[in-house]
Amino acid sequence: MRFQPIYDIAELCARKDVTDAVLCPGSRCAPLTLAFTRHPHITPRTFSDERSAGFIALGMAQQKKNPVVVVCTSGTAVYNLAPAVAEAWFSETPLVVLTADRPSEWIAQHDGQTIHQAEIFGKHVKKFYQLPQDYDHADSQWAINRIVNEAINLARQEPQGPVHINAPFREPLYPERNEATTYSSDVRVMREHRNAYTLTDEQQQKIRQEWSSYHNILIVAGQQHPDEALATALGSFFAKHDVPLVSDIISNLHEGGKSIRHADLFLGQASEDLKKTLRPDLLITFGQSLISKNVKLFLRKYTPKAHWHLQPEGTAADTFKHVTDIFQTSPASFFGFISSVQQDETFENQKQHNYTKLWEVEERRAQRTLADFFGSGDLAEMELVKELIDQLPEHSNLHLANSMSVRYANFIGLEARRKGIRVFSNRGTSGIDGCTSTSVGHHLASGRPTFLITGDVAFFYDRNAFWHNYPIPGLRVLLLNNHGGLIFNVIDGPASMPEAREYFITRQALKAQKLCEEFGFDHLILDSRRKLRNVLKDFLDLDGRTKILEFETDVTLNKTVFDNLKLKIKKSYEL
Amino acid sequence: MRFQPIYDIAELCARKDVTDAVLCPGSRCAPLTLAFTRHPHITPRTFSDERSAGFIALGMAQQKKNPVVVVCTSGTAVYNLAPAVAEAWFSETPLVVLTADRPSEWIAQHDGQTIHQAEIFGKHVKKFYQLPQDYDHADSQWAINRIVNEAINLARQEPQGPVHINAPFREPLYPERNEATTYSSDVRVMREHRNAYTLTDEQQQKIRQEWSSYHNILIVAGQQHPDEALATALGSFFAKHDVPLVSDIISNLHEGGKSIRHADLFLGQASEDLKKTLRPDLLITFGQSLISKNVKLFLRKYTPKAHWHLQPEGTAADTFKHVTDIFQTSPASFFGFISSVQQDETFENQKQHNYTKLWEVEERRAQRTLADFFGSGDLAEMELVKELIDQLPEHSNLHLANSMSVRYANFIGLEARRKGIRVFSNRGTSGIDGCTSTSVGHHLASGRPTFLITGDVAFFYDRNAFWHNYPIPGLRVLLLNNHGGLIFNVIDGPASMPEAREYFITRQALKAQKLCEEFGFDHLILDSRRKLRNVLKDFLDLDGRTKILEFETDVTLNKTVFDNLKLKIKKSYEL
Repeated sequence: MRFQPIYDIAELCARKDVTDAVLCPGSRCAPLTLAFTRHPHITPRTFSDERSAGFIALGMAQQKKNPVVVVCTSGTAVYNLAPAVAEAWFSETPLVVLTADRPSEWIAQHDGQTIHQAEIFGKHVKKFYQLPQDYDHADSQWAINRIVNEAINLARQEPQGPVHINAPFREPLYPERNEATTYSSDVRVMREHRNAYTLTDEQQQKIRQEWSSYHNILIVAGQQHPDEALATALGSFFAKHDVPLVSDIISNLHEGGKSIRHADLFLGQASEDLKKTLRPDLLITFGQSLISKNVKLFLRKYTPKAHWHLQPEGTAADTFKHVTDIFQTSPASFFGFISSVQQDETFENQKQHNYTKLWEVEERRAQRTLADFFGSGDLAEMELVKELIDQLPEHSNLHLANSMSVRYANFIGLEARRKGIRVFSNRGTSGIDGCTSTSVGHHLASGRPTFLITGDVAFFYDRNAFWHNYPIPGLRVLLLNNHGGLIFNVIDGPASMPEAREYFITRQALKAQKLCEEFGFDHLILDSRRKLRNVLKDFLDLDGRTKILEFETDVTLNKTVFDNLKLKIKKSYEL
Repeated sequence: MRFQPIYDIAELCARKDVTDAVLCPGSRCAPLTLAFTRHPHITPRTFSDERSAGFIALGMAQQKKNPVVVVCTSGTAVYNLAPAVAEAWFSETPLVVLTADRPSEWIAQHDGQTIHQAEIFGKHVKKFYQLPQDYDHADSQWAINRIVNEAINLARQEPQGPVHINAPFREPLYPERNEATTYSSDVRVMREHRNAYTLTDEQQQKIRQEWSSYHNILIVAGQQHPDEALATALGSFFAKHDVPLVSDIISNLHEGGKSIRHADLFLGQASEDLKKTLRPDLLITFGQSLISKNVKLFLRKYTPKAHWHLQPEGTAADTFKHVTDIFQTSPASFFGFISSVQQDETFENQKQHNYTKLWEVEERRAQRTLADFFGSGDLAEMELVKELIDQLPEHSNLHLANSMSVRYANFIGLEARRKGIRVFSNRGTSGIDGCTSTSVGHHLASGRPTFLITGDVAFFYDRNAFWHNYPIPGLRVLLLNNHGGLIFNVIDGPASMPEAREYFITRQALKAQKLCEEFGFDHLILDSRRKLRNVLKDFLDLDGRTKILEFETDVTLNKTVFDNLKLKIKKSYEL
């Protein structure tokens, strides 16, 4: 069969434990479509809007912690994948993007659906590969196998990320009507035995030597997926050491009791004198980006003597402008090792206790303020977010859309007792373009109840997330509909412009009613505090119906509540 | 004012006769947003989905025959413009894409909405420009002015196309609340005085020498916008010369009486013997791509002795594999000149008459078959397309979506009596991703009645075309809803695959009812031949209401009708 080397790509993927393929309709990609749909060990799913398909694949890969294959046809279909590819790049999510193409001779010769696909994703893929377009020569067949092996291995290497394989196909693209698609039994697999990124002797020595010279040690965790090995290592570490850990809700570390979760809230209001006392001498960071702007500003101003960043591979971001040491190691092995470093009960050691106390005092103050803040007056978006987060069922996914939703949720934080909650947010690029689709991907790949908290602009932007034929019974969307981009009313600047409403907030009129009717979703409407309990109960009832809970408010109320919370935090310092 | 050089970009655009700016919401782009919204001679419009915004700008630029500015914020917003930028590149539409960015120091440092924006559109822009990020130095201010001058000039040069200017901005991004945005009175304008691409003496001499040596001359016109100068030149040419002109519906040449409009229909069924007699010895082409696959296959097989391609600038596509001479000239000046070349009444000349007759006979045969074909049995999509096209009001826009709609319309063709109809279709890349948005752009920019003929996949894919606050009272959408990608049932190959329904046709369940309710559009439903006349009458009534005429059929009926038409054409040769 002419396309045997192409069909064998699916076989190779399966043998390399890739289990899911996201396909987009097209004719040029027929050899790939047939290869993946007919393979017994691959689950294929098809989505018509490539932009949404890309993000669904992203969500699936994040759930599976494994590369997902994305197939699309030639032309602008490829460009529609680009937003998800960029998010995959910056969020370090493994994707194997397989794009069909016309043979290279036909590019820019006025043939349909032909654009310049080589290197099209630029710096947003780990590597671009061009497959041969003729398969007769044994070297071409070898190259196809080698490239796919390498690409999957590379997608899995730290930091993980997307790879792009462009596959030109000559016509005819389809086999005969009754021709079976067979897979070669001797497909070569190149296994990569991965580094564990445990600490070297030299690294251990440096850490042992320097550790006890710091007494204001602070750990700050960026975005990361739930990581059991890390949770265990941190457990041992905190049993031995008394060090504050500042985390965002997307750090997925809430189950560990030690977290400072409200730094964004109190650092925004704390006096400079207080912030000075919170300055670390050693800052240890790991993970990706932080939501908390106030934490970033604090650490950029109150710089530590040393900033150790833990990252197995790749170049480190210098978010706080003060990285001094990069440890090529996994955070788990780092904290595992430190747990074994003896901490003497000395005066110096007492200093670290005191430093930690300072953070804990602020954390408790913010917690108390937050606990007392809600419960009366008009129901605002943030309170509703708090209510939902406090009632999330165990072992569910929480996806936080950009940009107000994830900020609200980060101010609220997840309590330690909320077990097995996995928190996701597209913070690689912080786009609003694929939040819903990504949450659909989370649900499809995990089958877990999946809660999406989103604003109306992100929600309607990505409504094609629902335009497919796969049931999503456990998806629950909390839609905060303030009919525009609330963020532009909350951040400084745009709100004071006369153009705010038309060109920044961008008023939009849609509600979810028609969308729910279109897709057969339950539409729950919350319009008063009185109904809160019952509506949430219905929303949280996992009865197999997809549900959208819509809460309509105006921009002003939420802005006021937001400002009042900040004010209350500020005032809590005056007591 | 710190952003004065940026505000002056709007002033410069206005002085260079750029009248329209498409803006997308965002904060990083605030200096640009303010510059364009506050300028008295620019019409700003804002759209939340950048993918749609890009295509709306594309449609506007095609209407205005002038660059339209597109502004968006940093991050994946930029990538969402890419499909429209690629279509602009291949359809040679001038766009000035202005993307806001963070200062370059912050790229990949875990700051939000930051991706690699430099060169992001790759080969799909004429040039990429990076603006300075600090404006203190006089050279920086000069550079900004020079770059924008050059970029607009370049977008207008033949072949026209998109340019990309990336503009990094430092915070604060907003002026003070009551600070007016002023524009410098002495903004420097670099005027480009454009070449007319008239024929040189050498070109004229070659044409004069060789013209009479050919007696089977054939002209084939690709896609182009209506061009009055060309229409006039062709009028003079045909008054003197008897040469067949094969055109697609998107060639916008239907008003000239000479066109062979149904070549796609009869060449697909004609015998090889007949095709041999239709072989040209001199082929003259101009314009962009052809829809007609049968014309392409015919010309690739029955190659001419010489193929002259007319194109003012740029590299020529070699669609038929046989270009021998490229004339850097406008088609108008070429045909204007040939009109002056004396054609003697000779025996050789008679040969050309005979050759033209052969094409005209086939054209009339196809016309007759088409005229007799419809009118009984179940109403099929193609018949409805014919009815609509035959009744289009004068001076309206017709936008044909990919891919079945534009094929249907091309089989039907526009009659010469349909005056002032401008036909558009996104055939640069033949994508389905922005057809509706592009037609919205056509309507917004021209105010003309605008008819979009589209299938359901393209229609729902791009439904965010309607998600904005601008009235589109003259937009009329004929929605051919067969609940999937009919094209995959019509072309050879996929229809015979067992996966056809799920993975190629990709069944989709949506109808337009909810969408119409959502956006307040009139929803006309055509469900039987009996209602055809009244429903079309209502649809064509330009009463200021946006209307969607939905026609639901199944894939099989339309495929059968399509096959029957081909069969009938084939049979017409046997009589």
